[in-house]
Amino acid sequence: MSEQAEVDYRPMWEELGLDLETHDALLGAVGQLYTDVYLTQEDRPEAMGYLDFVMSEVHGLRIKELHDFRAQGGKVVGTFCLYVPEEIVRAAGAWCVGLCAGAEFGYDAVERIMPRNTCALIKSFMGFKLTKVCPYIQESDLVVGETTCDGKKKAYELLGEVHNTYVLELPQMKRPQDVAFYRAELDELCIELEHLTGKTITAESLRTAIREVNDKRRALQRIYAARTAKPAPISGKDAMLAGQVAFYDDVDRFTQMMNKLGDELEQRVADGSGVAPSNAKRVLITGTPMALPNWKLHDIVEKAGGIVVGEEMCTGSRYYDSLLPEDGETVEEMLDAIAEKYMGINCACFTPNEGRTEDVVRMARELNADGIIDYSLNFCTPYQMEALAIETAAATSQIPTLKIDTDYSAEDAGQLSTRVEAFLEML
Amino acid sequence: MSEQAEVDYRPMWEELGLDLETHDALLGAVGQLYTDVYLTQEDRPEAMGYLDFVMSEVHGLRIKELHDFRAQGGKVVGTFCLYVPEEIVRAAGAWCVGLCAGAEFGYDAVERIMPRNTCALIKSFMGFKLTKVCPYIQESDLVVGETTCDGKKKAYELLGEVHNTYVLELPQMKRPQDVAFYRAELDELCIELEHLTGKTITAESLRTAIREVNDKRRALQRIYAARTAKPAPISGKDAMLAGQVAFYDDVDRFTQMMNKLGDELEQRVADGSGVAPSNAKRVLITGTPMALPNWKLHDIVEKAGGIVVGEEMCTGSRYYDSLLPEDGETVEEMLDAIAEKYMGINCACFTPNEGRTEDVVRMARELNADGIIDYSLNFCTPYQMEALAIETAAATSQIPTLKIDTDYSAEDAGQLSTRVEAFLEML
Repeated sequence: MSEQAEVDYRPMWEELGLDLETHDALLGAVGQLYTDVYLTQEDRPEAMGYLDFVMSEVHGLRIKELHDFRAQGGKVVGTFCLYVPEEIVRAAGAWCVGLCAGAEFGYDAVERIMPRNTCALIKSFMGFKLTKVCPYIQESDLVVGETTCDGKKKAYELLGEVHNTYVLELPQMKRPQDVAFYRAELDELCIELEHLTGKTITAESLRTAIREVNDKRRALQRIYAARTAKPAPISGKDAMLAGQVAFYDDVDRFTQMMNKLGDELEQRVADGSGVAPSNAKRVLITGTPMALPNWKLHDIVEKAGGIVVGEEMCTGSRYYDSLLPEDGETVEEMLDAIAEKYMGINCACFTPNEGRTEDVVRMARELNADGIIDYSLNFCTPYQMEALAIETAAATSQIPTLKIDTDYSAEDAGQLSTRVEAFLEML
Repeated sequence: MSEQAEVDYRPMWEELGLDLETHDALLGAVGQLYTDVYLTQEDRPEAMGYLDFVMSEVHGLRIKELHDFRAQGGKVVGTFCLYVPEEIVRAAGAWCVGLCAGAEFGYDAVERIMPRNTCALIKSFMGFKLTKVCPYIQESDLVVGETTCDGKKKAYELLGEVHNTYVLELPQMKRPQDVAFYRAELDELCIELEHLTGKTITAESLRTAIREVNDKRRALQRIYAARTAKPAPISGKDAMLAGQVAFYDDVDRFTQMMNKLGDELEQRVADGSGVAPSNAKRVLITGTPMALPNWKLHDIVEKAGGIVVGEEMCTGSRYYDSLLPEDGETVEEMLDAIAEKYMGINCACFTPNEGRTEDVVRMARELNADGIIDYSLNFCTPYQMEALAIETAAATSQIPTLKIDTDYSAEDAGQLSTRVEAFLEML
């Protein structure tokens, strides 16, 4: 690690148009946060050293990889939502990266162009862009947005003024005609991406991409499976970090390293060793995605003596819980399967979205959760509107729930800790 | 009017399951508001007497008409959005009514099931339903919702638990494939409505309905055209009331009475007489729809000495500014035209929605507006997100704008008055 730490990335950041001073402040703040949240933990799996390294180089080495790839003619596609299939991006020869959206940054600039009562995720991605501190969006030749919630749908109009942006239309229901509509959108996306990279999506390139991304999801599934054990072999925040880094890191390397983590966790489970006492209260978190570096709620739960055992969210199970068939013969056939699989994701932007409540209850049982925290970012209407359904379904299954609405600021951390402590006590 | 006022509607309201005590309180409050806002005006057109009468009987005589219609086997369809074509509802033999959504009522009950930070329009319609004070929804055999904004889309899930509800899926863009998608949704809607009424939509019934609704829109267009004159022949609140009542009243009668109003306004224009001095500042309001009895902003502007000359909103120009061809020969052909026309409405739920900014600038010119007020309900993300585009387009055309975010409460009326007065002063 010390070797890389000495590399001077400033010329690269400057070339990317980052605001170096503000960016230094950001890196300093995230580094300190990571130390406080992550490095204070005990008994962490050794394989987490890889994610520690990734995080220490998240705006360094990884950006250099993207930079070098682009210097050789490669294209990078920034995305912000599960519904933009990484398989297709990769099949077109491009690399897919998530965008910075997990910290309160540049809100002053954002609130000049969009309402204050926009969720933190959206304000954050615009804030990072406007204040020039996100190297991922700067390295993105194209951002592929999607029409999920009102906030993102309209924010892409504003983003489109300052960055090359393409918007994929998502339907709002999940009937066969909706799957067909999304399927047609995927055809359009293929054309857009082929145009971007100058490469053709072939059956072989798509099949390869499907296998690679399946492998990544399978590695994450192993981590999920290990978390069903008592005691939990890994903290919730470490496990969630794996899900977050999945959006940024090199696919093959990440898969390999997460399989090492999987090996280690399975050994821990076999040995009956864990990171928390067997009687630690086990919590499933469901709700709005938690973009890197949003570790706030996990930190609060685990510092209060609880253990987060799962995340029913887009930075969690919704990302890895299903795989694509790997034996597709034609591009058409594989795109059909992609449309089916992705339209099976239980995002609250759809109506109705009963699959989510079913998943939450099923996961709480699988993971031996003692309670559920239903987490929403403030102003995230789709998830906030589903709170009643989640609460009702959990109550029917006799699982206690706690509803938390918050944002990225630390202001309410004390109050949230008190509520979480009382909830854990009650379980 | 005195004759009808003596009719006792309480048995009918009781039969509809209204909460009589709360309903009395509502009627009292709306009656007082109407007196304060409307009946204090001077030089009103005589033909407004009809709308005064309608308002005095809005939960009385009109509900009795619906009640009698249903007693004879008729069906009533409640709607909440322009994208549910009244032409189709009528062609199936049903009557279409708007739902109560313009006053702060039952929020305590609403906030138990949906987030506090939901816009007033949505909280209001759920509040009216949950506290049993909206006879229109009680008379609705079916509510046809639509997937416009996140709030409504998800609120229909909650409404569906307590009322017979069907949801029409709207696409989120306006490309040819989106129009085709909406067109297919209209086929589904026809089936649903035919099932409800037991009647078949025929070329004749649809053509008749198209003519009737066109006539209604034409009458409203006459009022719009008269408002381009200086001095304005009608107050903004009187003109807006016509647009609001258009969603509730009997179509033919309303059209006839609004044509009388049109005659009178045209005469006033010819005579050069108006309701405000020629130098009164003329304001175009654009933004979130204003459901009956939301007259707050118009009242503030006009009590401050300004005159509202137009509304670029769903309870305004978006409702009446385009017509359907009346010479359709087949149901298919007419449905095609309906899909085209309705997908031309510039609702902020679409992305992109450039047509709206063009309309705002065009209307401001047509109406000789001195300024534009961009009005959003708090938490109405789609319209709030378009504020920058409206402001930019207006600035390019040298038209001053004022941005107002508010709700249905009277709490901020003083502050808004101050802002509006300063804006009018500046024009």
